[in-house]
Amino acid sequence: MAKIGITDNVFAFVPITTVTILGSHVQDRPNFMALGWLTRCNFKPPMIAISVNKSNQSCIGILESGEFSVNVPTTDMVSITDYTGLVSAKKTDKSNLFETFYGQLKRAPLIKECPINVECRVAEKVELATNFLFVGEVVGVHAEESVLTEGRPDPEKVNPFVLSMPDNRFWSLGECVGRAWHEGKSIKRNIR
Amino acid sequence: MAKIGITDNVFAFVPITTVTILGSHVQDRPNFMALGWLTRCNFKPPMIAISVNKSNQSCIGILESGEFSVNVPTTDMVSITDYTGLVSAKKTDKSNLFETFYGQLKRAPLIKECPINVECRVAEKVELATNFLFVGEVVGVHAEESVLTEGRPDPEKVNPFVLSMPDNRFWSLGECVGRAWHEGKSIKRNIR
Repeated sequence: MAKIGITDNVFAFVPITTVTILGSHVQDRPNFMALGWLTRCNFKPPMIAISVNKSNQSCIGILESGEFSVNVPTTDMVSITDYTGLVSAKKTDKSNLFETFYGQLKRAPLIKECPINVECRVAEKVELATNFLFVGEVVGVHAEESVLTEGRPDPEKVNPFVLSMPDNRFWSLGECVGRAWHEGKSIKRNIR
Repeated sequence: MAKIGITDNVFAFVPITTVTILGSHVQDRPNFMALGWLTRCNFKPPMIAISVNKSNQSCIGILESGEFSVNVPTTDMVSITDYTGLVSAKKTDKSNLFETFYGQLKRAPLIKECPINVECRVAEKVELATNFLFVGEVVGVHAEESVLTEGRPDPEKVNPFVLSMPDNRFWSLGECVGRAWHEGKSIKRNIR
């Protein structure tokens, strides 16, 4: 099984992530931007890492306020989510695109139309060549009751979408193909 | 549309990410661990951020070597991938689980069975409460020719799977629901 090197590293296929809408305050107004570069990054307390290009107004806003939100849109919101990534707050006021509300943090605007909203306070920031990597401590999570199963968000009810690169396509979730920390148990037994 | 606060933040539904297998050297031997906490984090040069619990041998190994690999398994590899996350290198030698090869970095073992392999050199590290966040500069990407379309990895051919939490389930990719930096163009035209 031959492997070949891919010269254009930027477009390498790693990794797929949930598409979210980043909320921040820019010049005291709510601003929103499609965000696909994020991951959980600390177990306790819960933290998530997001990466934002330095040229984005969202980046400047988060550096100033130390607060941001991550909102999870459904597949019905593909176009409006994508739109937030196509226009800059420099030229277009995006503060009224969504119905917003606030939790504990007053500069982390939350989107009513998104079934899951997470408010974060910046705990660490790392300046990279083109991007800022922000580590946010999760200070509040808000969810529509309709997307919960036994009190916890259920991906099948949330109906999120993910981004793959370099092809730049959005995908819904497919079939459940197993359970984490479970599927490997049969191998564990056999190897023992 | 009422929203409720979720008290158990740790298990909030953000975000879904590709399941990968992290490769590192631990005491001069290849070691592998299921890794679901990662994201792209810098555009140019290409970098990815990964988060590893401090108690993992992989974390100790990466701190020592400054190198790691990220390998993308297919849905056929769910059980073996999960297994690498169930057993610790402290007790079980995982160096022979896969057929390995090396690219530029000699302490970033790559997995032949995975169609995509990425080798990274640690550029930044952030110590958080329970985890280390490593920022790795991508120094090489290797791919099976069979998963490429016009020279670039194609998610439909790679057939990866993603992890959702708090339900801890693995999912295949579903339907393509749109194109990034494209679907929002109709809204942009209307608003203008």
